[in-house]
Amino acid sequence: MKTTFLPTLLFFLTISSVSSSQNAVQDSIMLKKLYTTALTDGKAYDWLDYLSNEIGGRLSGSIEAESAVKYTEAELNELGLDKVWLQPVMVPKWTRGFKEYAYIESLAGDKTITNICALGGSVPTPSLGIKAEVVEVKGLDELSALGKEKLSGKIVFFNRPMDASLINTFEAYGGAVDQRSRGASESAKYGAIGVIVRSMNLRLDDLPHAGAMNYGDTPANMRIPAAAISTNGAEYLSSLLKLQPDLLFYFKQNCKTFDDVQSYNVIGEITGSTNPNEYMVVGGHLDSWDLADGSQDDGAGCVQSMEVLRLFKKIGYKPKHTIRAVLFMNEENGLRGGKKYAEEVKRKGEKHLFALESDAGGFTPRGFNFQTNDANFKKVQSWEPLFKPYLIHYFEKGHSGSDIGPLEGNIDVLAGLQPDSQRYFDYHHAANDIFEYVSKRELELGAATMASLVYLFDMHGTK
Amino acid sequence: MKTTFLPTLLFFLTISSVSSSQNAVQDSIMLKKLYTTALTDGKAYDWLDYLSNEIGGRLSGSIEAESAVKYTEAELNELGLDKVWLQPVMVPKWTRGFKEYAYIESLAGDKTITNICALGGSVPTPSLGIKAEVVEVKGLDELSALGKEKLSGKIVFFNRPMDASLINTFEAYGGAVDQRSRGASESAKYGAIGVIVRSMNLRLDDLPHAGAMNYGDTPANMRIPAAAISTNGAEYLSSLLKLQPDLLFYFKQNCKTFDDVQSYNVIGEITGSTNPNEYMVVGGHLDSWDLADGSQDDGAGCVQSMEVLRLFKKIGYKPKHTIRAVLFMNEENGLRGGKKYAEEVKRKGEKHLFALESDAGGFTPRGFNFQTNDANFKKVQSWEPLFKPYLIHYFEKGHSGSDIGPLEGNIDVLAGLQPDSQRYFDYHHAANDIFEYVSKRELELGAATMASLVYLFDMHGTK
Repeated sequence: MKTTFLPTLLFFLTISSVSSSQNAVQDSIMLKKLYTTALTDGKAYDWLDYLSNEIGGRLSGSIEAESAVKYTEAELNELGLDKVWLQPVMVPKWTRGFKEYAYIESLAGDKTITNICALGGSVPTPSLGIKAEVVEVKGLDELSALGKEKLSGKIVFFNRPMDASLINTFEAYGGAVDQRSRGASESAKYGAIGVIVRSMNLRLDDLPHAGAMNYGDTPANMRIPAAAISTNGAEYLSSLLKLQPDLLFYFKQNCKTFDDVQSYNVIGEITGSTNPNEYMVVGGHLDSWDLADGSQDDGAGCVQSMEVLRLFKKIGYKPKHTIRAVLFMNEENGLRGGKKYAEEVKRKGEKHLFALESDAGGFTPRGFNFQTNDANFKKVQSWEPLFKPYLIHYFEKGHSGSDIGPLEGNIDVLAGLQPDSQRYFDYHHAANDIFEYVSKRELELGAATMASLVYLFDMHGTK
Repeated sequence: MKTTFLPTLLFFLTISSVSSSQNAVQDSIMLKKLYTTALTDGKAYDWLDYLSNEIGGRLSGSIEAESAVKYTEAELNELGLDKVWLQPVMVPKWTRGFKEYAYIESLAGDKTITNICALGGSVPTPSLGIKAEVVEVKGLDELSALGKEKLSGKIVFFNRPMDASLINTFEAYGGAVDQRSRGASESAKYGAIGVIVRSMNLRLDDLPHAGAMNYGDTPANMRIPAAAISTNGAEYLSSLLKLQPDLLFYFKQNCKTFDDVQSYNVIGEITGSTNPNEYMVVGGHLDSWDLADGSQDDGAGCVQSMEVLRLFKKIGYKPKHTIRAVLFMNEENGLRGGKKYAEEVKRKGEKHLFALESDAGGFTPRGFNFQTNDANFKKVQSWEPLFKPYLIHYFEKGHSGSDIGPLEGNIDVLAGLQPDSQRYFDYHHAANDIFEYVSKRELELGAATMASLVYLFDMHGTK
């Protein structure tokens, strides 16, 4: 035994290394095919053009959202998939109404109009608007120290900027967005009559950025209106407050929350050739805010997800496991689509292995975040070298995506495409999130990067 | 001996590892400082705003180039450097003259105006323009097969697109640009009377992209005019030629080459604290094409180089070796500044250790190319982990930069900042290379990335 052990081991090592290097060659060829097809014969950009320029902003419950459901269902049907269907989901319907109006009134009575937008979910102001003194704070934690005495009857102005020193702009967003989401509910406790929140934007410009807020358990009669102000507007207001702490701020908005309405997740599927009852998901969210097309957030993620399926069909790759593109409805102000999809997975006992979301813009892809255990992560990381020719270097643990989040606990691996984040918040939820600012190549590289990861998962899994 | 060898080795390993981990901690702290300062208290964007919007396109020999020399010299003087000076260099002066004019004339006599621009260095057309039949080719190698019989008296239309399947767009550029640089000189050999070249642009749009061409040893009386046509124009012309191979193309341009004029490289220096006679260079080129501001090419590289010096002053880092920011003149159509700088280095026997150029746009930095030997490259690569928090993952051997290229052979390491290249050729040499398309954060990240590499080189060298 002793004499044969070493050669046997070497033999097995050789076999395994030959087989793994054969795999690597085959995988490299497949990735090259996926990238080349996406870059030279892609469809994502045309789809996004239609979604953005023919349909437009797709706020849940809007006619545009309905159009987008029909359009993407029809386009998926064109791909010759094994199954395309709509998954019903009830969604909130909130509308902005007339354009908001706001001004700063100096002690001398001069009025300077400033750009605001109602935050999603906010109540309207009274029909004549509200006018009050302003208390500027840098965060929620300052409110209790100020107390009712200082805040009652006032408009609270949340003006903590996103931290520009953070390299990942999503971290900077995470560190500032509590002002937007909870500013109104917290301020109401101290008798404030409205809140104005500095837009979640790292650069200085004139565009207010929408986004969801929620009132938590604030009773309906205690709810106060909340709006975002542009970063330039916030800087200006702040500088004026230093000169005239008693100046007045006026704003008016007539947004409205309606009863929930019927909508849908749009799903296209290629049934697995050998493991049809094991599922992989790629997705983005079909709804957007209403101030622009929502091309980056998240038209890009939707067309990239559709493109993954199209690329597989185009290059003739038949996945072993069932793969679905899921265009989730209502990520922005309810996450109803993501929750509904996960509920249905659970109800039907569908075995989900893997889900990948693209919801961070159509910028140059840099890599992926993964939510999974260490063993799976190690396996996934072993594929990273295959991505090097495509300048994909980032494989880290981290948040995957909001819509696929509800699958956690019922799935092996959740992943999120990580595009370059530097410009994302220039556009996020603002009037300039339009098709013009999406680069065709960057969008296509993202789709190819997603398809490549799905392919590798399909071939090698995490077992 | 035998008994003490292992502990001794371990002792040295421990010492060396402690010292190297102390270095790593100190280096990490310094990089963090450089990035934070660039992102929260940077000056590069303001400088670029001025260069782009107050001065504009800076073609060699133009009044704008002269203004840019004065402006950057003055701004470097503001930084309190040890030395700021102008290095005289004679540069070519070529001017575009009146806007070019071109149309496609169908057999029925319909004329369709199309967007062209004269290529840099081209001769003008006769004052009435030229009109001739068009021969479309995909490259220089088709010319000899066509021969004088097919090409004499014709306009040659070079229409080989950049290869969209290449991930690095500079490779795609390298694979297509011979049509622009040598199309006219090669076509003239076969009696062609003009050339039209598809713009070096990966996307389809209406903008012609300028850029240098040269006539090589073509005698003056044999030189034919050369222009770029927009990618949309090229596609359109090509599709019409399929229907009407005999259609006519007309173009008129009145560009002109003057005698060389006096210009300057602009140089700012912080003298090294311990090795004042050993030099490190950061640079970009101050000249640009004339159709736009040249914000990406290469205003970005200039202000980033200036920012490297400013960041060192700002955080109070005193480099051991002398560091110079060199704003080279005339990269675009002559490289006179780069050659002059290298000549002077040689003439004065200045010992240059390291040069880093930024001339690939102000986009998110991804890493560096290095031109150096294996030993130096290995040393440089050992710093790569320090860049991981800043999402810099690309340390490869490759082309550094045109302006610092002439230093090769007289320097240890040449490096080129590698920003994300996906959008570079959307703007390159075209009317849309303007300030608006530069992201402040991306520009600042590039400057911090350059400063970090210079700092590491200054601290650890390649010895």
